[in-house]
Amino acid sequence: MPEVIPDDSVGLVTPQQFHSDVPLTLRSGRVLPEYDLVYETYGELNADRSNAVLICHALSGDHHAAGYHSMDEAKPGWWDNAIGPGKPFDSQRFFIVSLNNLGGCSGSTGPVSHNPETGKLYGPDFPIVAVRDWVASQAQLADHLGIQQWAAVVGGSLGGMQVIRWAIQHPERLRHAVVIASASKLSAQNIAFNEVARQAIAKDPDFHDGNYLEHNTIPKVGLTQARMLGHLTYLSDDAMRQKFGRELQEGKLNYSFAPEFQVESYLHYQGEKFSTRFDANTYMLMTKALDYFDPAGDYDHDLVKCLSHASCDFLVVSFTTDWRFAPERSEEIVSALIEADKNVSYACIDSDGGHDAFLLPITRYHQVLDAYMNRIANELEGRS
Amino acid sequence: MPEVIPDDSVGLVTPQQFHSDVPLTLRSGRVLPEYDLVYETYGELNADRSNAVLICHALSGDHHAAGYHSMDEAKPGWWDNAIGPGKPFDSQRFFIVSLNNLGGCSGSTGPVSHNPETGKLYGPDFPIVAVRDWVASQAQLADHLGIQQWAAVVGGSLGGMQVIRWAIQHPERLRHAVVIASASKLSAQNIAFNEVARQAIAKDPDFHDGNYLEHNTIPKVGLTQARMLGHLTYLSDDAMRQKFGRELQEGKLNYSFAPEFQVESYLHYQGEKFSTRFDANTYMLMTKALDYFDPAGDYDHDLVKCLSHASCDFLVVSFTTDWRFAPERSEEIVSALIEADKNVSYACIDSDGGHDAFLLPITRYHQVLDAYMNRIANELEGRS
Repeated sequence: MPEVIPDDSVGLVTPQQFHSDVPLTLRSGRVLPEYDLVYETYGELNADRSNAVLICHALSGDHHAAGYHSMDEAKPGWWDNAIGPGKPFDSQRFFIVSLNNLGGCSGSTGPVSHNPETGKLYGPDFPIVAVRDWVASQAQLADHLGIQQWAAVVGGSLGGMQVIRWAIQHPERLRHAVVIASASKLSAQNIAFNEVARQAIAKDPDFHDGNYLEHNTIPKVGLTQARMLGHLTYLSDDAMRQKFGRELQEGKLNYSFAPEFQVESYLHYQGEKFSTRFDANTYMLMTKALDYFDPAGDYDHDLVKCLSHASCDFLVVSFTTDWRFAPERSEEIVSALIEADKNVSYACIDSDGGHDAFLLPITRYHQVLDAYMNRIANELEGRS
Repeated sequence: MPEVIPDDSVGLVTPQQFHSDVPLTLRSGRVLPEYDLVYETYGELNADRSNAVLICHALSGDHHAAGYHSMDEAKPGWWDNAIGPGKPFDSQRFFIVSLNNLGGCSGSTGPVSHNPETGKLYGPDFPIVAVRDWVASQAQLADHLGIQQWAAVVGGSLGGMQVIRWAIQHPERLRHAVVIASASKLSAQNIAFNEVARQAIAKDPDFHDGNYLEHNTIPKVGLTQARMLGHLTYLSDDAMRQKFGRELQEGKLNYSFAPEFQVESYLHYQGEKFSTRFDANTYMLMTKALDYFDPAGDYDHDLVKCLSHASCDFLVVSFTTDWRFAPERSEEIVSALIEADKNVSYACIDSDGGHDAFLLPITRYHQVLDAYMNRIANELEGRS
């Protein structure tokens, strides 16, 4: 918790709520009759409403991307290193919007919300949402905020998938797309990792087919395991070697099945911490959205044809040691954009941070974001 | 099941039992007062007992490496493609020995055996065994068979670790070491994968702290999950892409949490099949042996110093897409052997088979094994 708010922080922020009464027909065919989205904003919308930037979150993210909710908060928002005065997403120049997605567990309508039609918790009955459903709801939020066109839509990992969907679904509503550590579709290997994680949750006896809250419990064990696996695969082999190597927790082997190596204790800690803050049904939903995403599927599985519907410019960023969303996946997007005659900048950032690198304040990475966003801000300020 | 035994098969084989009354002090300090090893042999021991080859199995292997136990057996032993007349480990030239390791669940003393001191099943009380303990017991078996020196000790993955241990522990007892898809120690990432798998088993309510057989059950769910994860990581991203891609089980999305993609169904099938044939306590033990292996640890963490104790020649083999036992890990061994002034041949085999490639009949791989073993056989036959 900060003694004083740092100068480069967006400062104290208060989440806001958007309620939509417009029924939303989801990709699955199911209809959400109404829904809430919780969001935060940083900076000021300019007079011609042209400086708005949308931040899309990844699997375990939420609307709290920057700043502090109170002076007692232990840590700032999840992307505080990139959002604030003088940072790549500069709140002195941009009006930045960050929301919790539908199906989330941080305030937007999701499994832990009440179903208005039954008065009961949605729980496992909350419909499986697709990336396009999130984008549709985000477009409603943009309407509500009076934003006709985003200066940029930005996201990493699952967030990057939302950016791609924005670009092809609402080409007139964004000028720039920033797609970080993402992919145009998951590989079989990635789907398999997600399924192993879902199984860990679904097979926890405390899961109760998703009705755990009715049973006054949570599937802590399963969610811990799912997160241990996820966390492990978001790191690189090299980073784990440097951080933990084969160091032992107590300096010697115990010849027991309790965690002995430091890497084991670390993963247990990360998994258990996550299991008490995150909703298991939300985790299940979010991984399904990842698995399902495949926008080229609607265009004869031709990514060039798919991306030809975009009219914005693109920045694509990948990280050398990210093996779950490998540079090759970003490069497929870049190649397709070039073939579709779009403007695209691409940077593959040297990092040992694995997939999690997209959340880290890596100098070269932030320089790339900074340069790109600076150009956008200069354009805006030149014309306004 | 074969209609007729193929010409290049070792044919029908009968497992044999070796009983040791010599107490074995394990690395952990615990003592096994007596134990059984189940093993098979293929081919004939020559007059001067110089043509014996030991096959060491990996995590889920057993003594049944080649041939058939009966005409009704659906599939031959696990390495039948490499062992038999005219195959790399040619049973017309070598006397091949394959055993089930201590702690296994296929006939050798392990968690599903009775503890002679209590008369009850060992279960979770079976001591955690280390690679060196296996080698010590294998040396007892060699004595029993009258084999003073192996022509070669051979193994892949965890099997390769046993080969390394043989080379430094009993340098006078082998002339050649064949180390395939292995490592001189596990990385933090590999330990982490093992721990997630162990957690899946340990947290299954049917595990009962390892006493599941007393409860007339098995931790099927946990062992299935552990195997799904293991299996997935033993394949390469490329192979999964080619084999499954994003193909759907029923041709369309169901918007449910049941397996939808073919890769999910495949992993479920593999996991469930394994969960009924393999013992969970054995799985736990075997992964611990993997984690613990670090022979250089006894030599100031200097692999060169460690391997300088070997006096045999080495063949080291790795596979391009094996990311759990990457070529770099084999190359560390090769470099240390060169620095220690040992004779070493090395081949990195181009394959999309991931770690599992070491079990596949890849032409170039088998050519390398064949050439190496042929040289050994020629030496033998020249001098006998």
